[in-house]
Amino acid sequence: MRSLWLENNRIDVRDVQPARKPAEALIKIRKAGICSTDLELVKGYYPYTGILGHEFVGEVVEADDPSWIGQRVVGEINIVCHQCEQCLNGRPTHCEQRTVLGIVNRDGTFAEYTQLPIANLHRVPDSVPDEMAVFTEPLAAALEIQQQIQLKPNDRVLLIGAGRLGQLIAQTLALTGCDLHVVARHPQQQDLLKARGIKIMGEGEIQPWRWDVVVEATGSPGGFALARKAIRPRGTLVMKSTYKGEMSVNFSAMVVDEINLIGSRCGPFEPALRLMESRQVDPTVLIAEEFKLEEALKAFERAAETGVLKVLVEA
Amino acid sequence: MRSLWLENNRIDVRDVQPARKPAEALIKIRKAGICSTDLELVKGYYPYTGILGHEFVGEVVEADDPSWIGQRVVGEINIVCHQCEQCLNGRPTHCEQRTVLGIVNRDGTFAEYTQLPIANLHRVPDSVPDEMAVFTEPLAAALEIQQQIQLKPNDRVLLIGAGRLGQLIAQTLALTGCDLHVVARHPQQQDLLKARGIKIMGEGEIQPWRWDVVVEATGSPGGFALARKAIRPRGTLVMKSTYKGEMSVNFSAMVVDEINLIGSRCGPFEPALRLMESRQVDPTVLIAEEFKLEEALKAFERAAETGVLKVLVEA
Repeated sequence: MRSLWLENNRIDVRDVQPARKPAEALIKIRKAGICSTDLELVKGYYPYTGILGHEFVGEVVEADDPSWIGQRVVGEINIVCHQCEQCLNGRPTHCEQRTVLGIVNRDGTFAEYTQLPIANLHRVPDSVPDEMAVFTEPLAAALEIQQQIQLKPNDRVLLIGAGRLGQLIAQTLALTGCDLHVVARHPQQQDLLKARGIKIMGEGEIQPWRWDVVVEATGSPGGFALARKAIRPRGTLVMKSTYKGEMSVNFSAMVVDEINLIGSRCGPFEPALRLMESRQVDPTVLIAEEFKLEEALKAFERAAETGVLKVLVEA
Repeated sequence: MRSLWLENNRIDVRDVQPARKPAEALIKIRKAGICSTDLELVKGYYPYTGILGHEFVGEVVEADDPSWIGQRVVGEINIVCHQCEQCLNGRPTHCEQRTVLGIVNRDGTFAEYTQLPIANLHRVPDSVPDEMAVFTEPLAAALEIQQQIQLKPNDRVLLIGAGRLGQLIAQTLALTGCDLHVVARHPQQQDLLKARGIKIMGEGEIQPWRWDVVVEATGSPGGFALARKAIRPRGTLVMKSTYKGEMSVNFSAMVVDEINLIGSRCGPFEPALRLMESRQVDPTVLIAEEFKLEEALKAFERAAETGVLKVLVEA
């Protein structure tokens, strides 16, 4: 099958033979999305060799249980052992033996087919079209915030960063009724938020020491510094992005202000599907362009352009 | 009155005139304790000029309300405005206008007398002797952990550091019934823990990625690195000490492991008094030596010796 292969910081479209393992499903990809993590993998921030991609919607074409054949599905990206201490204590996304679709030791979704254990699959409701369902994984990641911390309707919440993930976070945070403001640099990012009635705020307008919850979604030291300045004493600072290398921080000030800092990664798929089914969240407004798999290199170039949100690849 | 004065990284015993402000009590100091923060102030880690000291038990000798005269008291160290956003939202220890007894813009307790607003005072039960009551402030700081996070009886809890504050934290954490282990370097620290049936653990024995809650009470980058290694995914790492300057940390790994990092400072006085009244906590075992106020410089020398826990100063 045709696939987008990453090796030594270079990507190319090449033929790879799929081979379904027992207890796994072979899934024909319908659409796959390019995520910031994919762009970072190409830059070599994490070592990975294989087929890229982890955001997808597809159709099951082979499975041990025939009832899955023909189902339109999305899939959780952590492939887990169900036996380690993390799995046995309800933290399967932290499985000590995990592989991760298109990220760690497992071929991904920019291909004609991908494979996942049946346990990872979620059926997509008929009313959720492909161009919406392909956002299930990042939308689930956005919802991980609400899985981890309590967001109260009366909270002042500041979101820093309104890119691919930030837009989805903004849409879900707004549903809590909280007093949400978003720092968005690019006009297009701002327009998408304004269209949903979400308030935007310039960096210079941010009152220090005021916000109950700050979500940092830029992954930059500047974004973290802004978050740290904005958060009130005993407030919660959610890190919803990864940071390159080490970062130097004044921890004493964090102790004096009793700040709660929490890292946030993969989230729950079913609520993501529910929110799209009810149209309370609409990620399709993020779509910038769609490419055929053969043009995947052009798709990656487009996704890397400044201000471009979601680029889809159709298998 | 005689007092221990800090100026330009030098301490000396000198005469200073006390002058009671309206709505404040004049308190005759009975005993005061030397804390690691005092030693750091002398080293110049934070700028401060004035009378040192913030841990004390004393007797009210002047007050607007005569019912306070003659009362044996301890006192909260943050002097607050009751009007700022932090005060009005139930976070008075984070008052934006605060002074802090013997630490920030307010003379402290290594003196014959000190002064505090009546609102800061707590009566000491008769059954709690002076040498116990003088530990109310650090014991309250230990209990701030339980104010901030839920400690479950089934949790695996690792405490790193068993110095002045660490010993009090160990005693209070043990009351939760949790599976507590303490990293204690000095034999005397170990003996005090063993005497209470608290388990100690060598640094080399610590299983990585295993502990539900880790309390870091050393204030050293090495202690933080050990805590980070020990904590399980989605675990809570409590920073119960301050760190000199900035510290460089891999934040991406904290995001991947979804670690919850929380700074912890001043805590509640009444529970501290209750736990000493019932003798469920006994801080007096920490006392190394007691000095007269005139010998305060010798007291500070003793407190700075390796492995020495609490040194008291009697006014």
